[in-house]
Amino acid sequence: MATVQRATRTPEAKSFIAASKAFASGKDTPRAFLERCIETITAIESDIGAFVATNLAGARAAADKAGDRWKAGRTLSPVDGMPIGVKDIMETADMPTEQGSPLFVGWRGGRDCAAVAALREAGAVIVGKTVTTEFAATEPRGTRNPWDLARTPGGSSSGSAAAVAAGMVSGALGSQVIGSTIRPASYCGCFGYKPSVGGINRGGSFDVFSQSCTGVIAATLGEAWIMARAISARAGGDPGYPGLSGPLDPPEAAKPRRVAVLQTAGWKVATAEAKQALEGALERLRSSGVAVVDGSASAKVAAAEAALADANMLSRRINAWETRWPLNTYARDMDRSKLSRPSQDRLAEAEKMTQEEYQGLLVKRDRVRETYAALKGDCEVCVTLSAPGPAPVGLTSTGDPTFAVPSSLLGAPALSLPVLRAEGLPLGLQLIGFTEGDAAMFAAAAAILPIMGK
Amino acid sequence: MATVQRATRTPEAKSFIAASKAFASGKDTPRAFLERCIETITAIESDIGAFVATNLAGARAAADKAGDRWKAGRTLSPVDGMPIGVKDIMETADMPTEQGSPLFVGWRGGRDCAAVAALREAGAVIVGKTVTTEFAATEPRGTRNPWDLARTPGGSSSGSAAAVAAGMVSGALGSQVIGSTIRPASYCGCFGYKPSVGGINRGGSFDVFSQSCTGVIAATLGEAWIMARAISARAGGDPGYPGLSGPLDPPEAAKPRRVAVLQTAGWKVATAEAKQALEGALERLRSSGVAVVDGSASAKVAAAEAALADANMLSRRINAWETRWPLNTYARDMDRSKLSRPSQDRLAEAEKMTQEEYQGLLVKRDRVRETYAALKGDCEVCVTLSAPGPAPVGLTSTGDPTFAVPSSLLGAPALSLPVLRAEGLPLGLQLIGFTEGDAAMFAAAAAILPIMGK
Repeated sequence: MATVQRATRTPEAKSFIAASKAFASGKDTPRAFLERCIETITAIESDIGAFVATNLAGARAAADKAGDRWKAGRTLSPVDGMPIGVKDIMETADMPTEQGSPLFVGWRGGRDCAAVAALREAGAVIVGKTVTTEFAATEPRGTRNPWDLARTPGGSSSGSAAAVAAGMVSGALGSQVIGSTIRPASYCGCFGYKPSVGGINRGGSFDVFSQSCTGVIAATLGEAWIMARAISARAGGDPGYPGLSGPLDPPEAAKPRRVAVLQTAGWKVATAEAKQALEGALERLRSSGVAVVDGSASAKVAAAEAALADANMLSRRINAWETRWPLNTYARDMDRSKLSRPSQDRLAEAEKMTQEEYQGLLVKRDRVRETYAALKGDCEVCVTLSAPGPAPVGLTSTGDPTFAVPSSLLGAPALSLPVLRAEGLPLGLQLIGFTEGDAAMFAAAAAILPIMGK
Repeated sequence: MATVQRATRTPEAKSFIAASKAFASGKDTPRAFLERCIETITAIESDIGAFVATNLAGARAAADKAGDRWKAGRTLSPVDGMPIGVKDIMETADMPTEQGSPLFVGWRGGRDCAAVAALREAGAVIVGKTVTTEFAATEPRGTRNPWDLARTPGGSSSGSAAAVAAGMVSGALGSQVIGSTIRPASYCGCFGYKPSVGGINRGGSFDVFSQSCTGVIAATLGEAWIMARAISARAGGDPGYPGLSGPLDPPEAAKPRRVAVLQTAGWKVATAEAKQALEGALERLRSSGVAVVDGSASAKVAAAEAALADANMLSRRINAWETRWPLNTYARDMDRSKLSRPSQDRLAEAEKMTQEEYQGLLVKRDRVRETYAALKGDCEVCVTLSAPGPAPVGLTSTGDPTFAVPSSLLGAPALSLPVLRAEGLPLGLQLIGFTEGDAAMFAAAAAILPIMGK
């Protein structure tokens, strides 16, 4: 095991749902819960670098109002009073939105994005803006992993995962077009949830990608659900999509009869220990009576594996075309020299592409989605690793997203459950569901957690 | 005929394509063409009020560069040097984007929207930002119709239509979620083109609606096409959509064998003269050998009419939910008193809606789209009026959009051809095509124009 550079305290996520059971009686309050979060921020933010900006005065005022509602038995939603961080590609009326780019230092649009507007309407407490890599892509911005300060927290939702893992907030908004929610959740030992594509309204988020989705990183499975669902009930999904549906409280556990194991292209780069950890999880599932099928036993699973083999390249080419704008106006009308080298390279790649090539890529993506959808009758959910191993050492890369790409390409919902370990560090067990079947995936996850001893 | 309040000169649109034939020889130049546009702006902008902002220095510099390319035989695209206006919901790096709202006076995002970035890349000359009603909805901002200063130019793309009609620019960007491109084009006697939904990338346009589309208002049919196509070739459609496809130059004329007449809900409010004008156009089509079918002769046309009967209410309810955000953050985080009364009412309506109701509306819209799509084998294109009559007198309303709603709801391409007249004023003949069949609709339009004597 590599030497671990510890933060000044052991990371411990703070469950808002657990604390809220004492709010009605007044034994605990949203304000007191928030103060415990702020105490953690004060203690270790200088180690971690999870936040770009905070509005603690605003958060305290919101927590006090939530406390009044809990006492009066008139809460607005399950997230009433919940301290939340917001990935810094999403607009907030009270804080700048800098997108992890020097081009946007201090940029203010003057409004809340749809998700934040909905969260505030639901009574949530917006604590601050969490660090994102540049434009939610690859260039890291220095956030450290609370489990080992020498390691990346993953990206692009770096600050969201680190803040939740460290107990600075109970949940945070992220986004994922390649692997930006599932991977940092895995590296930081949080619950990560990427909804079905279009599941959460992205209005006011600087997010142009057709397979991208606003996601959630949270202290518990229940918190991941109540955050996402509180948003969709008030802001819907992306315009034209039905948006995340289901109960406002977390779905009841429902043990799957059958799960499919996907190796995906990630298997080749996964560490032996990570593979063993997944094998252990599958063995627990089998022992509890869940049938586990893989590509050797099921032609449909094998077909899905084959269709997903090229997921990484296909996603990257689609994304390249879709980011031609705005990178072209940033380079021409703002300041090209303030774009990272990877962004400049991405723009150059995009400018060599044609609309016809992009149209061909969309057709390919549709075919992959159809092949995967055919699995639906065969299993309730798919399982795989969330990452090839624990967070790698170093802050110059946010790690390999390969295991997270399939659900991004598919537009399918995915969850990272922090139930595995490798090198003594967190590693996620990933569930991948079927489009619009988010609630069913959560029900399966709620049944799988105790099977994994959580 | 009502008394007409004339502008200081008769409106005359300026065709860039016609002028550009003399650019290679140097007999005319893009700069000289632009100066003729500027001369018109100088002469009558105080009457019309088409622009919120202009950047004439920037336009002149761009026109000069285009002139060099024309002389060298190295033009970037068919719109190289074309003077263009941009609806003021779309971001421009060199001008503010005010959305027709006092909340956004002087607002600058610092970048070009995707469509403008693509147009500049194609060599187009961006002259200025054209007046939009508040948030591209209903509240007018004072623009006058060049054909009669006492009348509305229509909305929400008010300034775009007025500027093109008056000869201030050859084309302008608009948008349409209800009737905001087809109707002002009809009222101002321009060509109006609303693409298939998703046809033109809306990145950087303040446009949240699922059935909205960036459109074009232009001096000629050819200019409408080359503008839209120059954009889609460089910026694609909305992410995840194939985007407008076809030749970069205007499609060749192809006379339709058969057209379907749709009365739509607009028929009840259309003036007798407008109905007669449409009848005259149908008679010309018949005389030229085009079969014309209506709901009395075709069960499929009757089914489409029935499915579209409720298009207006269905569209308005869908739009209401989709504008809940951002109106809610504008009201709460900016200044509610600076929202117009209609916007405040729309927000109140949205806040009474539920996600479930919205989901039901999407299902209904899908059904209407399926019913209409079944017409495709029966006719090449549908025809109807673009508006119930000419522009109404008064500047407090932008007129009745009812004839434009069906194509918006359908996500189908539509064209307004300025070939009819009523009360001595312009009135559009509307073509409605089939989704992704934009080029075929233009080919039909090119054949229909000479049949109408144009």
